[in-house]
Amino acid sequence: MIDYVSVTPIAFPDPPLLNSVGIHEPWALRTIVEVSAGGLVGLGETYGDQAHLDMVRQVAPALAGLDPFDLNGLRARLASSGIPERGRATVGLSAHSPLMRVFAAYEVALLDLQGQATGRPVHALLGGKVRDAVPFAGYLFYKWAAHPGAAPDQWDSAVDASGIVAQARRMVEKYGFTSLKLKGGVHPPEVEIEAIQALRDAFPDMPLRLDPNCAWSVPVSRRVADQTAGLLEYLEDPTPGIDGMARVAEKAPMPLATNMCVVSFDDIPEAFAKRAVGVVLADHHYWGGLRATQRLAGICETYGVGVSMHSNSHLGISLAAMTHVAAATPALAYASDTHTPWQCGADVVEHPLSFVDGAVPVPSTPGLGVSLDRDALARMHEDYLRCGLRARDDTGYYQRFDPDYRRLIPRW
Amino acid sequence: MIDYVSVTPIAFPDPPLLNSVGIHEPWALRTIVEVSAGGLVGLGETYGDQAHLDMVRQVAPALAGLDPFDLNGLRARLASSGIPERGRATVGLSAHSPLMRVFAAYEVALLDLQGQATGRPVHALLGGKVRDAVPFAGYLFYKWAAHPGAAPDQWDSAVDASGIVAQARRMVEKYGFTSLKLKGGVHPPEVEIEAIQALRDAFPDMPLRLDPNCAWSVPVSRRVADQTAGLLEYLEDPTPGIDGMARVAEKAPMPLATNMCVVSFDDIPEAFAKRAVGVVLADHHYWGGLRATQRLAGICETYGVGVSMHSNSHLGISLAAMTHVAAATPALAYASDTHTPWQCGADVVEHPLSFVDGAVPVPSTPGLGVSLDRDALARMHEDYLRCGLRARDDTGYYQRFDPDYRRLIPRW
Repeated sequence: MIDYVSVTPIAFPDPPLLNSVGIHEPWALRTIVEVSAGGLVGLGETYGDQAHLDMVRQVAPALAGLDPFDLNGLRARLASSGIPERGRATVGLSAHSPLMRVFAAYEVALLDLQGQATGRPVHALLGGKVRDAVPFAGYLFYKWAAHPGAAPDQWDSAVDASGIVAQARRMVEKYGFTSLKLKGGVHPPEVEIEAIQALRDAFPDMPLRLDPNCAWSVPVSRRVADQTAGLLEYLEDPTPGIDGMARVAEKAPMPLATNMCVVSFDDIPEAFAKRAVGVVLADHHYWGGLRATQRLAGICETYGVGVSMHSNSHLGISLAAMTHVAAATPALAYASDTHTPWQCGADVVEHPLSFVDGAVPVPSTPGLGVSLDRDALARMHEDYLRCGLRARDDTGYYQRFDPDYRRLIPRW
Repeated sequence: MIDYVSVTPIAFPDPPLLNSVGIHEPWALRTIVEVSAGGLVGLGETYGDQAHLDMVRQVAPALAGLDPFDLNGLRARLASSGIPERGRATVGLSAHSPLMRVFAAYEVALLDLQGQATGRPVHALLGGKVRDAVPFAGYLFYKWAAHPGAAPDQWDSAVDASGIVAQARRMVEKYGFTSLKLKGGVHPPEVEIEAIQALRDAFPDMPLRLDPNCAWSVPVSRRVADQTAGLLEYLEDPTPGIDGMARVAEKAPMPLATNMCVVSFDDIPEAFAKRAVGVVLADHHYWGGLRATQRLAGICETYGVGVSMHSNSHLGISLAAMTHVAAATPALAYASDTHTPWQCGADVVEHPLSFVDGAVPVPSTPGLGVSLDRDALARMHEDYLRCGLRARDDTGYYQRFDPDYRRLIPRW
């Protein structure tokens, strides 16, 4: 039975990565949950923004006495703690479920506990691994060399096609990735098409993806889809909303993927009926945990829709969780996204899972297979307190350097 | 690791229950699987017809060395043993997946092993119970008093409305059921509507269901649906096929349920798109086990379709499996079907789960919570060998007493 829950917000340095609504701030926020039961500690990692952190903290006392196997009971306790099931949509982004986001943080910790208690890796509790290593994609970003006023990070600037290709080469060399994804929506579409073409020239056989985060109108999306025919494994969220995506998908020669218009089970029937997407990006952090990710994969498989995996800035607990669920989910056949290269070595776990040839070998140790580095946790919590950030604001941060910058969805 | 698998076909006496294609033969066939691992034995119960038995037996040796947690590995081994994924549809019945039927028998046994190995009831491995007792519906049949030439069984004949009401009274008295289902398709529809009306008069507050097993054309189904407006919780499989069901559903004042036109994940997209059914009857025996049942429930929940549970003639292992999965699946909110009253006390388990007020209290002992009665198994295997039946043939059996009888779907 659960006897103690600890919730710790942390911050770790984040490089100046550009996207369709601004640039990453110098610190990425995460929340680490530790759930104790019977002398064991289960770990979870989730978002660090204040509103979410407040909810994660608010429900912590309600977990006392819960059996770590009782995932349905966890959900019931969160619901009766007042965490809303439905959230609010914003422009370009369908509504996340606050309940599922909070649930996910704890579910991973409970699965970690279950695994430790039974001496089984989490993937065994999810049906058993179907692959020995989980492939991830190298996640390329346009970026500045440094946050203004700070020292350069370990990655150079990448402001054009040649910068992106150089970044890809370094990333592939270091991690062995065999798929590449470019975060777009930063430059006019033709500039990003040029970067995709340059990546294709540099990596003739590698699956490529482009994700402009809804930066384009439907006509622009259709034009880009035409112009990248044969170049892309999938085109991710070219335009906002299920209807817009459906209009692009109708004409696009490649599948469209999304982590923006289909983000909860409520979005699925309409999106699938309209054939808006060919690939759903799972993400246990907002879909509601590892079992919910499998449920999503089951629905996608039933409807002939592909499944890949989305990533935000994360650390080693989430990497382990993603690895276990991808290992045990046959339908999750695409290489998953990961921000691991961008955490620049920072972590809260002692021996993070590592990449071999672009894939993470699936751990066979009990639970998630990672343990907390308490010194790092303390340090990163200090950084959280010191950095002053309490919610992510890529647009506001960009505006500090360009007061005329506006958040526009779509921009082109 | 699995070291031994035993597969035993058995037979137990079955009363002369009438349905749309004939009458139950004097023996019901089942197959009991025992899977040994680490000194523990996990139990599964499945169909007993020869074709299925052959497949269950054929794959048994391939399970040696499998980790009981490795459900994905089980599926892979069955697939490489040549069990086909897709089966053949027949008139009125969409195609079952042979692979999923064989998988289910073993999956339940492996979950039983997992539960025993971890000291947890199976429902805990499925996410934890959301109800303390699982409600079942009293399953009423038109029937003869006895198989011709044999002594009467413990249930009287029921050939008309008053016989059905008397049967319902006895069944409710003995088991406490709070929902009732009538197996129809035996008499002309107006006669069965009369029986439903008589049940409503006798049990004013009890949810009622009628299941003619595709005995009616679309116009007849529409007429019956009209005439039973306000009387039925749901109308089950009035007519064959997804298109026919959709045409009935369009006009019917109550939800249509099915265990005939939606019997595998392949059937779902078309059936849901056409709004052919409001309730899918899960059945782990052909949907592919307890986790697949949860996957089905998740899809139904996502699409706003209800979930209930189907039953064929079964014994105590299946009753336990049904109870665990229903306990741990929030969406499975309807009372489930069960044939328990018709097994007339026969069982292969030592202490079968029992009914209290029409519901089975959810066991909290490790695994399924039932253990094999080896004497009964041996006796029932002898009965299997002696009875000579190797496949169910309700039509052929009926024709022995009425050579002019024809299998007609639909009949009216």
